[in-house]
Amino acid sequence: MNEPRDHLAANSHRPAIAITMGDPAGVGPELCGRLLATPEILAACRPVVFGDSAVLERVTTKLGISFSASRISTDQDWGLLEDAAVVDVQSIDLDSLEPGQVTKQTGQVSFAYIEAAIEAAIAGNVQGVTTCPINKQAWNLAGITFPGHTELFAERFQSDRFCMMMTSPQFSCSLVTTHVGYGEVPKLLVPERIVEVIELTHHALEKILGRTPRLAALGLNPHAGENGLFGEGEEARIEAAIDQAKKLGIQIEGPLPPDTAFLPWRREQTDGFICMYHDQGLIPFKAFNFDTGVNVTLGLSSVRTSVDHGTALDIAWQGTADVSSLIAATRLASSLASNRTA
Amino acid sequence: MNEPRDHLAANSHRPAIAITMGDPAGVGPELCGRLLATPEILAACRPVVFGDSAVLERVTTKLGISFSASRISTDQDWGLLEDAAVVDVQSIDLDSLEPGQVTKQTGQVSFAYIEAAIEAAIAGNVQGVTTCPINKQAWNLAGITFPGHTELFAERFQSDRFCMMMTSPQFSCSLVTTHVGYGEVPKLLVPERIVEVIELTHHALEKILGRTPRLAALGLNPHAGENGLFGEGEEARIEAAIDQAKKLGIQIEGPLPPDTAFLPWRREQTDGFICMYHDQGLIPFKAFNFDTGVNVTLGLSSVRTSVDHGTALDIAWQGTADVSSLIAATRLASSLASNRTA
Repeated sequence: MNEPRDHLAANSHRPAIAITMGDPAGVGPELCGRLLATPEILAACRPVVFGDSAVLERVTTKLGISFSASRISTDQDWGLLEDAAVVDVQSIDLDSLEPGQVTKQTGQVSFAYIEAAIEAAIAGNVQGVTTCPINKQAWNLAGITFPGHTELFAERFQSDRFCMMMTSPQFSCSLVTTHVGYGEVPKLLVPERIVEVIELTHHALEKILGRTPRLAALGLNPHAGENGLFGEGEEARIEAAIDQAKKLGIQIEGPLPPDTAFLPWRREQTDGFICMYHDQGLIPFKAFNFDTGVNVTLGLSSVRTSVDHGTALDIAWQGTADVSSLIAATRLASSLASNRTA
Repeated sequence: MNEPRDHLAANSHRPAIAITMGDPAGVGPELCGRLLATPEILAACRPVVFGDSAVLERVTTKLGISFSASRISTDQDWGLLEDAAVVDVQSIDLDSLEPGQVTKQTGQVSFAYIEAAIEAAIAGNVQGVTTCPINKQAWNLAGITFPGHTELFAERFQSDRFCMMMTSPQFSCSLVTTHVGYGEVPKLLVPERIVEVIELTHHALEKILGRTPRLAALGLNPHAGENGLFGEGEEARIEAAIDQAKKLGIQIEGPLPPDTAFLPWRREQTDGFICMYHDQGLIPFKAFNFDTGVNVTLGLSSVRTSVDHGTALDIAWQGTADVSSLIAATRLASSLASNRTA
């Protein structure tokens, strides 16, 4: 199984990065077309779109986007890839595909694109995966119960030690808990898990920044519990995790009062925020990095990044989708994959 | 009791606004001195500092801030006030006062300043109150158990229908729950309370903006529950409250997924966000409005505003404190008090 990778490595220093097309009724197909037409991406990696080449053709023809990519099938010899490619994962019925309308079928195929990309990553045919947005409602219609990409990747890569991090040149936010209800968060905040997220974030940002990252963990309660006045002692568990991380040589402070953690001076002094729940990290992250953010899954044996936005069904196939988040995600995957090889 | 107010009203259209000095070991005394030296404030209102005139003298002499204000005692005839004044509420032992060091005594006096200002407001001697920051640790040392200003004002004004709103020229955030532990929030999210906060916010912003405000309520869970996937149905209760508010003629949408509620385009389209818990509103509000935010208590019979920052003990009495938040808070109190009289 290693032969294709070795062959590729001999041919080129640019890593092969799988780009999953996401839900075909959303902005994914247009974004994939724009990505393949972006010179800086072709210089940084060999992008391989996992999707439906008929869909890609239709949207790029409609919008006048021109690109060059070989069309291959999943069983084709990967060693021949030199530049951009499109892997035809599954042929969706084009007549039933309505931009902006998610269906059971769009859910099924968007899931299949990811599974094929993961297989290619595990086989070593690609060195990283960047995902376009899927639609949860479509997944539900298709009977797919994963809460999101992150959990699917973790299962397929057999990782029980992973976390989601949002990253941008400004700052990064890692999540101790992700896709769970608000009320379930407190019991999940055990020191072992918090230390795990701190360690994963430290190592990832060390690789991205090329220096020791400055981390800060947030409290859970208003004013970080205000010395035990609010909450059930969650801050004591966060403190225990911070102490443990410091003993591992990690530069981290906290638990910070959440409401002042993202003030301008604090953002400047912090590379990575360790956030206790989904919205504690994602509200400020998205507010500040709405078009430059990249979602990274840490703790997998392969690089995985994702765009920072949803399927945007209301503007699907209309030529107005902004490709900057997909470009940023693909660049980061390329860069992390190159570091990994080095 | 109404005589002084009538007398004042005849003398001047500028409302009298009480400014509580806050914890004397923090930045409050310096800010009060700077406020009294600000011409635009003297033009907008008659500021009456409730604090300790010896403390104010010491800090302003040290920092070279000059201002003009009459020194009066709490039992003096308020009808004589024409311009700025300082009400000597309680004489702190100056020798034991150490800038940056909060004590039982600083907790006691900062509490006494507020109580005196509230008395003056209830008596009609001032038309609004603007508060400088107190220190919760000092209050704890002094045995004062109020979670914050908001709750103290609500009790003294005998209001059981109030809420905290943070406001700035950019956007405002009102809180359905405020100073409670993270885990206590879900059970407090009943439709009646949510409607109450929506109504209070609607009326306050209508007064501030002079037009119908555009409101948006946030969900509680990641992705606003994602159609019941996350949480215990809190979004259904929020939806019920939104429906009720719409029937009252209020312009409101939601429940919004919290993580995208503060994207730039959404911030531009929204005057007031109805937030379910402290940090859901205060993380984005403070991140964007760190030097222009004003804290308003809605639902009281008198105007009450507050600065958007803490005691900043590390820079107390050093001449580097930024008075812009206190200026904004005093201006808003003056403006709301003028509307109220009109």
